[in-house]
Amino acid sequence: MTIDFKQDILAPVASDFAAMDTFINEGITSKVALVMAVSKHVVEAGGKRMRPIMCLLAAKACGEENLEKHTKLAAIIEMLHTATLVHDDVVDESGLRRGRPTANATWNNQTAVLVGDFLISRSFDLLVDLDNMSLLKDFSTGTCEIAEGEVLQLQSQHQPDTTEETYLSIIHGKTSRLFELATEGSAILSGKDQFREPLRKYAGHFGNAFQIIDDILDYTSDAETLGKNIGDDLMEGKPTLPLISALANTSGEEREIVRKSIATGGTENLERVISIVQSSGALDYCRKRATEETEAALQALAVLPNTPYRQALENLAKLALNRIQ
Amino acid sequence: MTIDFKQDILAPVASDFAAMDTFINEGITSKVALVMAVSKHVVEAGGKRMRPIMCLLAAKACGEENLEKHTKLAAIIEMLHTATLVHDDVVDESGLRRGRPTANATWNNQTAVLVGDFLISRSFDLLVDLDNMSLLKDFSTGTCEIAEGEVLQLQSQHQPDTTEETYLSIIHGKTSRLFELATEGSAILSGKDQFREPLRKYAGHFGNAFQIIDDILDYTSDAETLGKNIGDDLMEGKPTLPLISALANTSGEEREIVRKSIATGGTENLERVISIVQSSGALDYCRKRATEETEAALQALAVLPNTPYRQALENLAKLALNRIQ
Repeated sequence: MTIDFKQDILAPVASDFAAMDTFINEGITSKVALVMAVSKHVVEAGGKRMRPIMCLLAAKACGEENLEKHTKLAAIIEMLHTATLVHDDVVDESGLRRGRPTANATWNNQTAVLVGDFLISRSFDLLVDLDNMSLLKDFSTGTCEIAEGEVLQLQSQHQPDTTEETYLSIIHGKTSRLFELATEGSAILSGKDQFREPLRKYAGHFGNAFQIIDDILDYTSDAETLGKNIGDDLMEGKPTLPLISALANTSGEEREIVRKSIATGGTENLERVISIVQSSGALDYCRKRATEETEAALQALAVLPNTPYRQALENLAKLALNRIQ
Repeated sequence: MTIDFKQDILAPVASDFAAMDTFINEGITSKVALVMAVSKHVVEAGGKRMRPIMCLLAAKACGEENLEKHTKLAAIIEMLHTATLVHDDVVDESGLRRGRPTANATWNNQTAVLVGDFLISRSFDLLVDLDNMSLLKDFSTGTCEIAEGEVLQLQSQHQPDTTEETYLSIIHGKTSRLFELATEGSAILSGKDQFREPLRKYAGHFGNAFQIIDDILDYTSDAETLGKNIGDDLMEGKPTLPLISALANTSGEEREIVRKSIATGGTENLERVISIVQSSGALDYCRKRATEETEAALQALAVLPNTPYRQALENLAKLALNRIQ
């Protein structure tokens, strides 16, 4: 079956999605013109808004009918996501994101750092308005873990001895944790405690699969399909799963080339490293791991009632996996 | 009367201050070594810890006897303050703060941005543990305003037409707002709603005076007494009150020199600008404004019971003013 994003994922929550989109724009209010300009720029540059869609679907999958509060939660999730992207682009010195100039490139690093801070604060401010202490605790702990994941990634840069376990900690923090907040947050807000764990597990495994797939595409894709260049991770000396797995499966000269490429960064040996990643079976291993994570995500959903909303969440996980098949 | 910081300000809350200091160190916990290293570095590089002291004094001045929660609040305030300093140093590309290498200089901008994010998140996480929705709302709104003040400052850089009103908005956000959170937060946490406004007003006016004094010293002091160099603000083209006031009191060539110095930044005309700031009466005006703000701060305290704690808050405002007398 071919999965269509609009029809098979977005459609069941399309009207709530529109309300969410309106709320994002209303939620960004400031008397400071530069805050408004930068915030609008980065929020409008958004992608498919996967996280808020997941949040809305999770609410409906829990049996929630009134999504008024959940559309706000979904908007907050997207705002938090945008804030992390703004800071990521400063950290990575990126000039483009999804084909548009980044905030740091359009304005400067200073503006990007401070408007990112505003967006983090504003997300919390809107979250406080939802008046739910369990939700606040989940988010305040979660955002700490997201920042820690990002720092762990920085700490692991240029470290060829990074283990798969550390890699999993990094991607859990930098990617999966926000997906978890999006789905578990909906269950908390609906008072459906029995669905907190299944929805968190779904999102956590989905996020892991999503990031592993992203890291595979850095060695197999091109700018046109992904919005980033092949070899970006290698350039920065990031020990992602394709390289960790290649190191586990090679020896001698090949292993040394991969180790050295992580340690020094740069794309001097890019073609050679790609060839090693492919011939060593590393990509096969990564695909296997992404498939396992996707299956674990689907399995976690099994305890939820079988509704079009649960099916849409399943479709989202399957569609993500299709990117590498 | 000569005011001694330790004896006349710190002494009434010395034991609570020690508990606060312990809690800061305990509050910074992370499994990620780099998060710990950077956080410890920046928190230990702290100054006089004026904000947490003000928070503890405000609690006692409200009549609070059990400061267990307030020592945590005071620690959170200092952590938030540290987070803003870490990002400020990235924004200002500072290499030294209080004579010690900054986080961005010791590690790099990336690390400083992300550990700053961690400290913001961790502050909220600890704040949520205090389990007080009014306090959370005050802080979530307040941190938005702090970020907005910082962006407004950036937006006003190199703008010779910046008004005194805009200057006051900037310093309220970047400086006074956190002082307000420190004192009003104590009243909220103690459920002493009648003292919220007086304590907020005290801290707001104190913060304004404090920042105006800081901005005066940028044209009259040297690195030894202040930890920053004379002319730093001019270098960055910041339209602070000494320059805004000089522009209001000069015409012709002098006025043009000041306007141009704001527009371009740099210290090419530093000596000439200092001379204009002094001869135009701008410094006198700034001293008058700082004195007025200090008096307004003291007056706001008058409705609180006359205790050694209120007196210590008064001493703090007077001591700050002494820096320019």
